[in-house]
Amino acid sequence: MLPLYVTSGEPAGIGPDICLDLAKQWYARPVVVLADLNLLQQRAQQLGQQVELLRYHGQTTAAEKGQLYVEHIALAEAVQAGQLNPANAHYVLAQLQQAADYALQGRSVGVVTAPVQKSVINDAGIAFSGHTEFFQACAAVARVVMMLATQSLRVALVTTHLPLRQVADAITAQRLEQVIDILVHDLQQKFKIKSPRILVCGLNPHAGESGYLGREEIEIINPVLARYQAQGLAISDCLPADTLFSPEHLQHADAVLAMYHDQGLPVLKSQGFGEAINITLGLPFIRTSVDHGTALSLAATGLAKSSSLAIAVDLALQLAEPMVMP
Amino acid sequence: MLPLYVTSGEPAGIGPDICLDLAKQWYARPVVVLADLNLLQQRAQQLGQQVELLRYHGQTTAAEKGQLYVEHIALAEAVQAGQLNPANAHYVLAQLQQAADYALQGRSVGVVTAPVQKSVINDAGIAFSGHTEFFQACAAVARVVMMLATQSLRVALVTTHLPLRQVADAITAQRLEQVIDILVHDLQQKFKIKSPRILVCGLNPHAGESGYLGREEIEIINPVLARYQAQGLAISDCLPADTLFSPEHLQHADAVLAMYHDQGLPVLKSQGFGEAINITLGLPFIRTSVDHGTALSLAATGLAKSSSLAIAVDLALQLAEPMVMP
Repeated sequence: MLPLYVTSGEPAGIGPDICLDLAKQWYARPVVVLADLNLLQQRAQQLGQQVELLRYHGQTTAAEKGQLYVEHIALAEAVQAGQLNPANAHYVLAQLQQAADYALQGRSVGVVTAPVQKSVINDAGIAFSGHTEFFQACAAVARVVMMLATQSLRVALVTTHLPLRQVADAITAQRLEQVIDILVHDLQQKFKIKSPRILVCGLNPHAGESGYLGREEIEIINPVLARYQAQGLAISDCLPADTLFSPEHLQHADAVLAMYHDQGLPVLKSQGFGEAINITLGLPFIRTSVDHGTALSLAATGLAKSSSLAIAVDLALQLAEPMVMP
Repeated sequence: MLPLYVTSGEPAGIGPDICLDLAKQWYARPVVVLADLNLLQQRAQQLGQQVELLRYHGQTTAAEKGQLYVEHIALAEAVQAGQLNPANAHYVLAQLQQAADYALQGRSVGVVTAPVQKSVINDAGIAFSGHTEFFQACAAVARVVMMLATQSLRVALVTTHLPLRQVADAITAQRLEQVIDILVHDLQQKFKIKSPRILVCGLNPHAGESGYLGREEIEIINPVLARYQAQGLAISDCLPADTLFSPEHLQHADAVLAMYHDQGLPVLKSQGFGEAINITLGLPFIRTSVDHGTALSLAATGLAKSSSLAIAVDLALQLAEPMVMP
């Protein structure tokens, strides 16, 4: 069976710690951590954790509980937990590059990422704006879609890390169509939801209130949605974001499409912080991620929670299962 | 004891229905519904509800359970439940005007409002943009603040019903100071919270991420917050809105200050829709409101839920209690 790769991310943060916790679980296919073997050994020692680290060289069977497959990537300098060091920025990027290469070559089912620290990579003189953009460039696709998910809610975003004043102008028919095409495709192909039901937030408060509070719903968004509705897609018109997230609305939806970051994510994270994961849609491989940062102060303390990584791995493995034809 | 007034709002909606339910409760002071007596009688009959309607003429003792104080305001035309009629727009405004006059004259402790239908008031040729603006004009105050509250969360807004593209420019130091002054004053004076603790959302995603995702936090918002912090107020710097609403953050806060409507309200309403109420801060009297619309199709059916009005009345009465000096 093809493996799933997990990038351990920033070595001074909790990435190595939470990756070690993966050994507590048995997985049906090889789950392989990309990291420096010595770092993992040292961190396991610091945490008083018994883990048998196995060098991965293409095994097709899963590791046992208590074991962890590791593909070694060498650190540039030794790591002190909690201390960022630009000298190891290339080590972090080498993990990502390796994971992307394997996925694009069909040698893995995809990648799960532990957190990186953007600032230290930038401090090393490398332009890097995030995992998502990195993988998008590797895969050479025009657009990807960020979706966050908990057990009970999936929220995809039309715009992501944009200053608020740029959001309204970024909502174009073309972008909406690209995002909806990707969302529908991946809900069908990766999530195996045959006829996905999508609720769409308006851009303006009260979804524009018939034009009194903004006209983007009338002029841009709803006309796009109408075209998809005419094709038979179960997608709503623009709905007021402040009432859309009630349980009675959500029970009939497979995903919510929010227009921007702080419209869609506060609800989702308030319901399931620590349990939420990030999924990049639109890539030719599976990519899930934890929904937290490097938590430098918790590295090597035993206080880091690995639940988000565990859920991200579970979901990636689930998405990697072939579609069952009825 | 001074009474609390409740405006029954749009007569074709569920306002009269939910006001009738107030008779099921005993209140410590007179709670007086502003409505057409005949309409209430008719609606009670349609609902098969036994309510003793008492004409209010200044009684200082509370009504009994099963009774409801009513101050009569005459409809222009008879009402059919669910059918809007511009001829009765003046009836709706007369309730609001009466309630504001009494409060401003010190003849009541304040007002609780059932929903109105803005469109039918506008169709009658009257400029009307909402309860809040109406009471603000009556009281002649420069700024009021909209706050929504559930049992566990209070969210105040710096901007409210603005198109999203106008939000960033509306965040000025002057407006922030006006809003924070009102918020702190009312949390202290009305909510009796001596040292209120306030968490503030950034305008941009990740609160601007040190300027990478917008500079309003650095240039406008945080400097204002720093001045309040220097005065000893327990107010945060700008925090990322998507992680601020986690239970561990909120347990140490008396209120959240959000920069705009869809940043603050989706979380609050997803947690407590039907239990959320709206409070106008900055008025020289107490004003609370239900957090739902006129629900025309539910009028006279018995399906309208009166929980939001009941909570709005409870809170108004609680805020009306004099501060107990320790």
